[in-house]
Amino acid sequence: MNNKLWSYATPGIPDELFSRGKIPMTKEEIRVVTLAKARLAPEQIIWDIGAGTGSLSIEAARLTKDGVVYAVERNPAGLELIRENKRRFAADNLILVAGEAPAALAELPAPHRVFIGGSGGQLEEILNYVTNRITPDGRIVINAVTLETAARFAAPPAGWQCEIVQLQTARAVPTGRVHLWRALNPVCVITLERRR
Amino acid sequence: MNNKLWSYATPGIPDELFSRGKIPMTKEEIRVVTLAKARLAPEQIIWDIGAGTGSLSIEAARLTKDGVVYAVERNPAGLELIRENKRRFAADNLILVAGEAPAALAELPAPHRVFIGGSGGQLEEILNYVTNRITPDGRIVINAVTLETAARFAAPPAGWQCEIVQLQTARAVPTGRVHLWRALNPVCVITLERRR
Amino acid sequence: MNNKLWSYATPGIPDELFSRGKIPMTKEEIRVVTLAKARLAPEQIIWDIGAGTGSLSIEAARLTKDGVVYAVERNPAGLELIRENKRRFAADNLILVAGEAPAALAELPAPHRVFIGGSGGQLEEILNYVTNRITPDGRIVINAVTLETAARFAAPPAGWQCEIVQLQTARAVPTGRVHLWRALNPVCVITLERRR
Amino acid sequence: MNNKLWSYATPGIPDELFSRGKIPMTKEEIRVVTLAKARLAPEQIIWDIGAGTGSLSIEAARLTKDGVVYAVERNPAGLELIRENKRRFAADNLILVAGEAPAALAELPAPHRVFIGGSGGQLEEILNYVTNRITPDGRIVINAVTLETAARFAAPPAGWQCEIVQLQTARAVPTGRVHLWRALNPVCVITLERRR
Repeated sequence: MNNKLWSYATPGIPDELFSRGKIPMTKEEIRVVTLAKARLAPEQIIWDIGAGTGSLSIEAARLTKDGVVYAVERNPAGLELIRENKRRFAADNLILVAGEAPAALAELPAPHRVFIGGSGGQLEEILNYVTNRITPDGRIVINAVTLETAARFAAPPAGWQCEIVQLQTARAVPTGRVHLWRALNPVCVITLERRR
Repeated sequence: MNNKLWSYATPGIPDELFSRGKIPMTKEEIRVVTLAKARLAPEQIIWDIGAGTGSLSIEAARLTKDGVVYAVERNPAGLELIRENKRRFAADNLILVAGEAPAALAELPAPHRVFIGGSGGQLEEILNYVTNRITPDGRIVINAVTLETAARFAAPPAGWQCEIVQLQTARAVPTGRVHLWRALNPVCVITLERRR
Repeated sequence: MNNKLWSYATPGIPDELFSRGKIPMTKEEIRVVTLAKARLAPEQIIWDIGAGTGSLSIEAARLTKDGVVYAVERNPAGLELIRENKRRFAADNLILVAGEAPAALAELPAPHRVFIGGSGGQLEEILNYVTNRITPDGRIVINAVTLETAARFAAPPAGWQCEIVQLQTARAVPTGRVHLWRALNPVCVITLERRR
Repeated sequence: MNNKLWSYATPGIPDELFSRGKIPMTKEEIRVVTLAKARLAPEQIIWDIGAGTGSLSIEAARLTKDGVVYAVERNPAGLELIRENKRRFAADNLILVAGEAPAALAELPAPHRVFIGGSGGQLEEILNYVTNRITPDGRIVINAVTLETAARFAAPPAGWQCEIVQLQTARAVPTGRVHLWRALNPVCVITLERRR
């Protein structure tokens, strides 16, 4: 991976460095917490399901030396953005997967880490599929922007335990001679690992 | 740095892996955003002023390959904790500096990155000193837990620009058969870089 | 109702004016939003289920001229606090009901408004009972401090619609020469009314 | 005041019952907390400086029996909205004052309560004027949406004490078959009363 545009050891690429279009994007602060909860390491296979603009995939690809990130997206506009961002950040180890999860996951190698940013209404099917294929010490990190998704993890899948953190971010935006506080929508970051 | 206890490429060491005592600690989610805003890279000189338990210093030391982190703290209980955490994480490139900033900073090499977690009421003196000594493309990241500290950056130091983000975190804590939402106190993460 | 201690037209009695003990209390800011969502009026019958310290009951009793508030609580320590607060605020139209809902509700007149602050694990039974007995234009307002309670209202009871608002409050607390931000735990205020 | 449109004893008129235009509006949840902090009572003179859409003025006028609310606004679009909302809610005891504070306040009777929603950059002048004219047990409640306004009250005016509360609200908005969390921008509610 060529890191001319962004060469730091830490995640947190500013939102405006990505091509964004009208696809909702995981904002910088949420992204770095999501990546932290996943605990990335070299040589990991990483699935990013509902990859959106690919911002999370790009960061993950940078962080997992000799690993591979599969960005799964069904929306053609999203796929185009991911392709553009992959080019922009020279993310050679990021592979686009066009299609709907879980069907689109069948050909992929078993993952060490899975991000779920969007599930297209197939959250249960995706969870079933992912919990079966992920490695024993695998971690699944879900970004939930709806009440329903967070609610679903009141009871994690059998054999799994989960941590749920809600992040509410506000930015002080310079406006005239003052800074207006602008809230980002709250996101629940849900992390699953096998019960020990 | 020996990474037996924590060997991931991402920041975000869980709070409970650190020795903590009664010193306030930068919580995991705030810590990873703070590290992200600093944009760490190899071979950096990093100052962590008001290092507290040293959790930020430990993470920074892990992330800056061939760099050095100076953890500056005046409180003996804090210094003891930092020493313990340095040992626990085998952070060889973390150097303890006992004393009060800015006086205690005089002997240190010029920094590429500076964290300010606590200022002991000397924020202006520290800012003056740090903005003079930091490298041209240096970044200063401040964790503000008071109204006064955030307020101070309504106007950044002359020649500098700043970004202010407020993070409010809540954790769903298992309690009996339900999850109680527990809020962490809000923190403003303030990032300074030179105006271009 | 004698209003010597608090005689204002608005709700929002400061927390410290109530006897509190160790029972969790609906904080002032949450209480006023909860009362607002209930839309109180004269001559209403109001049930406060899981009344805790009775702070919500006391405010409701003040606001519903010629109405009656039934404070239902099973915990003896809570009942003692409600009794004390009733005396302190001379809330003649506040009636204590010792016992567990829904059983304890059987003898009460049908309500126009129902608050649910605590359900003792009987939320479904309470909802069934309350939605049967409440007047046609009745309103039910629930303070949810757990993931599970908020989650339950992703689908409201049949024939009902609901509004869900999450409130996160932080207070700037004077500490030495500065103000420390202290977060209150987030609360979801859930309001039910019949679908039209 | 004719209360056909809204006849409840509690504040909290839903946002959508007001004429709003493109003027920023104090949202329902913030409004009820703001009114609570003011502690309204009958026969009060109330100033609402920077009244915007007049939503706060309308609620205050309803709550202060035999009192009078002066809604001060310099923006013609705002004044038109206030006029429309006054008519809609038949708020006979709401008086429009076109002009800029503090100049526009000179002819008004001394207030018991003052809301400051917008200051047009004249916050110090307004505070000076208001603290001189308000009654001895008067209360001033300020809605701050900028870093600068909250920061200004780190030290309240001489002889006054202040309480600062930050409110962050999110609404679960039905979208398709799920509820999306939508954040409102954070607001600081600042309450001033004389030091005793």
